[in-house]
Amino acid sequence: MNSITVHSSSRNEMIDITMEVQEVVDKSGVKDGYAILYVPHTTAAVTVNEGADPSVKHDILSALNKLVPHDAGYNHAEGNSDAHIKSSIIGCSQTVLIENGKLLLGTWQHIFFFEGDGPRTRKVYIEIFGK
Amino acid sequence: MNSITVHSSSRNEMIDITMEVQEVVDKSGVKDGYAILYVPHTTAAVTVNEGADPSVKHDILSALNKLVPHDAGYNHAEGNSDAHIKSSIIGCSQTVLIENGKLLLGTWQHIFFFEGDGPRTRKVYIEIFGK
Amino acid sequence: MNSITVHSSSRNEMIDITMEVQEVVDKSGVKDGYAILYVPHTTAAVTVNEGADPSVKHDILSALNKLVPHDAGYNHAEGNSDAHIKSSIIGCSQTVLIENGKLLLGTWQHIFFFEGDGPRTRKVYIEIFGK
Repeated sequence: MNSITVHSSSRNEMIDITMEVQEVVDKSGVKDGYAILYVPHTTAAVTVNEGADPSVKHDILSALNKLVPHDAGYNHAEGNSDAHIKSSIIGCSQTVLIENGKLLLGTWQHIFFFEGDGPRTRKVYIEIFGK
Repeated sequence: MNSITVHSSSRNEMIDITMEVQEVVDKSGVKDGYAILYVPHTTAAVTVNEGADPSVKHDILSALNKLVPHDAGYNHAEGNSDAHIKSSIIGCSQTVLIENGKLLLGTWQHIFFFEGDGPRTRKVYIEIFGK
Repeated sequence: MNSITVHSSSRNEMIDITMEVQEVVDKSGVKDGYAILYVPHTTAAVTVNEGADPSVKHDILSALNKLVPHDAGYNHAEGNSDAHIKSSIIGCSQTVLIENGKLLLGTWQHIFFFEGDGPRTRKVYIEIFGK
């Protein structure tokens, strides 16, 4: 199984992994098909959003922190329930189409690894399927 | 790549695209497999929900507006951070199974394009894969 | 189409279906590929999260109830708008990779059926695709 390693440096972070995913597509030789990205962690996620202006990922992280505060009287004793909740809201997998050997992203779209309980070293599985 | 065009007429909107997606399935000739729907925009999304009572989509849009207000002191200067945030919460892709040439939806399920920053003309990529 | 039946016993519930999904993978004989899980209901969903400590699913359900209260002046008259909204937030489908005949889940990951309007008898479609 192909995978990439992601290093987060703060508790909440969105890390652009578009180039790394494209490299896996390149190596696969697949021209038309799709990539399944899968995060095997329960306090992280994967999403697609605007990559041009870094204030967008700041606003997403900030909104998620308001919706799901770090400390809110959770039962789970590890202090990271907020990250588990965000993981299910954003989702741990993402499918992206591939056309002519390139990820078929919109003009502004980048692929982001969402870290909810960093800093940590994480993994994203990437499986490429041809048409 | 197959795609359909969606025209939104207000800022927040859920537009039923079930028939258009089924037409793409029909043309593909695929009897058993699945459709990957992919929205190449960062202020829109795609979701499946009840299509019988229009008050359901009203309630979904209204709840999203309460959770992620239009103006809430965001950093991103384009005034559409709420739409970016909702896009990552709802998600820009959806997989739907196909059986006997038909989208395998539940009794009440319809496929909706979610517009978060309309009115605009949008695109949804639809790729059909046979089993 | 393969499917499993899920019985919920309360209004909001997360039910671990990992073993049932693995059984469908086993019967398929597929060694490497992926499973598409699809919930054909509009007040339920499917998600992957921590299965070791039951307080995690408690915290997820509790946070969703705070974000989307049961009664909040919704238009839809059936009293289950909260469940429709949660369904679109969590999502009605999930893709999981398969390696060597096993669901490629992270150490702590289990697959959960999310019930938002139980108790009910529900269905999850599971389609297995080989590489």
